[in-house]
Amino acid sequence: MADIDQGFNEFAINRTDVLAARDRLRSRVHATPILRSDYLDRRLKLSMHFKAEHLQHTGSFKFRGAMNAVRLLKKSGFEGTICTHSSGNHGAALARAGRLEGYAVTVVMPEGANRLKAQSVVDEGGEIIWCAATNSARLEAVESLQKSSGAHLVPPFDDDRIIAGQGSAALELLEVCADLDVLLVPVGGGGLLAGSLLAAEGVRVYGVEPLLADDTARSFESGIRCGFDQSLTICDGLRASVGMRTFKIIQRDVAGILTVTEEAVTRATAQLWRDLKSWVEPSAATVLAAANTYRSKFEGLKVGAILSGGNVDFSALQKAPYQRWLSDELSLRA
Amino acid sequence: MADIDQGFNEFAINRTDVLAARDRLRSRVHATPILRSDYLDRRLKLSMHFKAEHLQHTGSFKFRGAMNAVRLLKKSGFEGTICTHSSGNHGAALARAGRLEGYAVTVVMPEGANRLKAQSVVDEGGEIIWCAATNSARLEAVESLQKSSGAHLVPPFDDDRIIAGQGSAALELLEVCADLDVLLVPVGGGGLLAGSLLAAEGVRVYGVEPLLADDTARSFESGIRCGFDQSLTICDGLRASVGMRTFKIIQRDVAGILTVTEEAVTRATAQLWRDLKSWVEPSAATVLAAANTYRSKFEGLKVGAILSGGNVDFSALQKAPYQRWLSDELSLRA
Repeated sequence: MADIDQGFNEFAINRTDVLAARDRLRSRVHATPILRSDYLDRRLKLSMHFKAEHLQHTGSFKFRGAMNAVRLLKKSGFEGTICTHSSGNHGAALARAGRLEGYAVTVVMPEGANRLKAQSVVDEGGEIIWCAATNSARLEAVESLQKSSGAHLVPPFDDDRIIAGQGSAALELLEVCADLDVLLVPVGGGGLLAGSLLAAEGVRVYGVEPLLADDTARSFESGIRCGFDQSLTICDGLRASVGMRTFKIIQRDVAGILTVTEEAVTRATAQLWRDLKSWVEPSAATVLAAANTYRSKFEGLKVGAILSGGNVDFSALQKAPYQRWLSDELSLRA
Repeated sequence: MADIDQGFNEFAINRTDVLAARDRLRSRVHATPILRSDYLDRRLKLSMHFKAEHLQHTGSFKFRGAMNAVRLLKKSGFEGTICTHSSGNHGAALARAGRLEGYAVTVVMPEGANRLKAQSVVDEGGEIIWCAATNSARLEAVESLQKSSGAHLVPPFDDDRIIAGQGSAALELLEVCADLDVLLVPVGGGGLLAGSLLAAEGVRVYGVEPLLADDTARSFESGIRCGFDQSLTICDGLRASVGMRTFKIIQRDVAGILTVTEEAVTRATAQLWRDLKSWVEPSAATVLAAANTYRSKFEGLKVGAILSGGNVDFSALQKAPYQRWLSDELSLRA
């Protein structure tokens, strides 16, 4: 596996790296269950298989990539400290992975980040440095931290170790459901999507993105990676712009990027609570929002979907108009 | 197994009947998973093993008893119609069990019942007859229905077939966690608790009850079964008074009845959402509320707990003071 610090090599990783990550992570990550709902299947006229990464360590798939990177550092004899930037889930995941392997971890977090996720970083023994809530401020803060402390950066997504680790979730899903027609994967920075694309050869894989953070969709359409500096989507896990390395893989392999509205995401969140009895965060519910929104596309198919996390920012969902969509949906039945 | 219609025989059932129900239900009910949370265990200094009956058919353990009764009817050659009274989960469970085995099911429901649960009865092909929200009105309505239609009554809890069926959940839990010190079980009418007591020989089993519906606690203390006519607890699944048959078993075998406040239940509901990522209803969360409230009683022990259901009445939880407790708890971390 290429070292990202040694410069950009477009397609340095492939399925073999994901398989290696899967072996490296065995017994270190939860092989999370695959959940089904009769109600959802009947309503959408398809069969949907949800990979329950909200039941992963620290409540999201992010622990896979973080642990993969930390194990590789350990194997290489690394003895320094680790840093990253994260809106939450990657920070908590890296803090735990670091703690388990004996490394101190510092996380640069944007102000306004999900409070529970920040608390989780601290609970896992990590240190937080706050910065302004823009992508540029994050990168500046982490660069200055690296310079002053000499800490090794484990980026949240644009890193081969991370991409390979995240891909292990799709591998596990395919071990159980070998004959999926389609796989739906949320996309923020693109680590989970790129890893899933490498893992799921032969399956049509779609990325799903909130309309309020649709940089990957726009990039995919135009062929030119375009970002944004700030997004206000309820999907706090998907506010990052797609990465350089992740975008190259996405551009090459993805079947398409599906965008979903804030209302669709909020209603899908409520549906997953009510019908799958699973406490997932809006970022995770994008996959069901896509199945609802693009229903005719998936009718009759066997659809896999990765529920990316369960660290719900309930106070954000209590604000209008989210609260109204949520309550409305929760008082309905399928 | 005794036929309840043939008159009251105190201890007509025992562990053998629960084992028989378990065999009868195999492949017809979900062998639900057992869930754990590091956070909860660390905070409470114990190890807690949650039997996830919110993932059962129709979202509650009630499907076990209902299916057991319907299978026994089928085996006996019964060809009529079936009726019951229920605040919700038993009604939906019986409607589905009836549908699967080819019986028409009518459910008497009290006004003000959880709307989603009512909808679920209809979705499963059941018919609803509404009555006033008191225990006496329920019994009157079902009696008049039996007289007019000749339907066979499958009661929600005070019936040997139901008690034996519900006990199968505790049996499954003990198959995986053989060395439990304690088992916590919610008690409304007492079907699940009585069944669990028969199933879990050698384990200290506690019933858990909301203070606002504490008839079992008062009955256990006084030795005389005392009911109430109406309860306003947020635990809509536990508003029934304890039954005659169930109370006899409870009185003989239970280690104690623990009562919990509305605030404790609401906070425990939020904790199970947040830390176990499980969408459970307040009635189910009583078991964690008890572990929180009577913490010193359980420190260091291996504790089993049955999460009875996941049909959350969100609109009820959006009313003061429940909404405040819920939001407050969900913005905290362990």
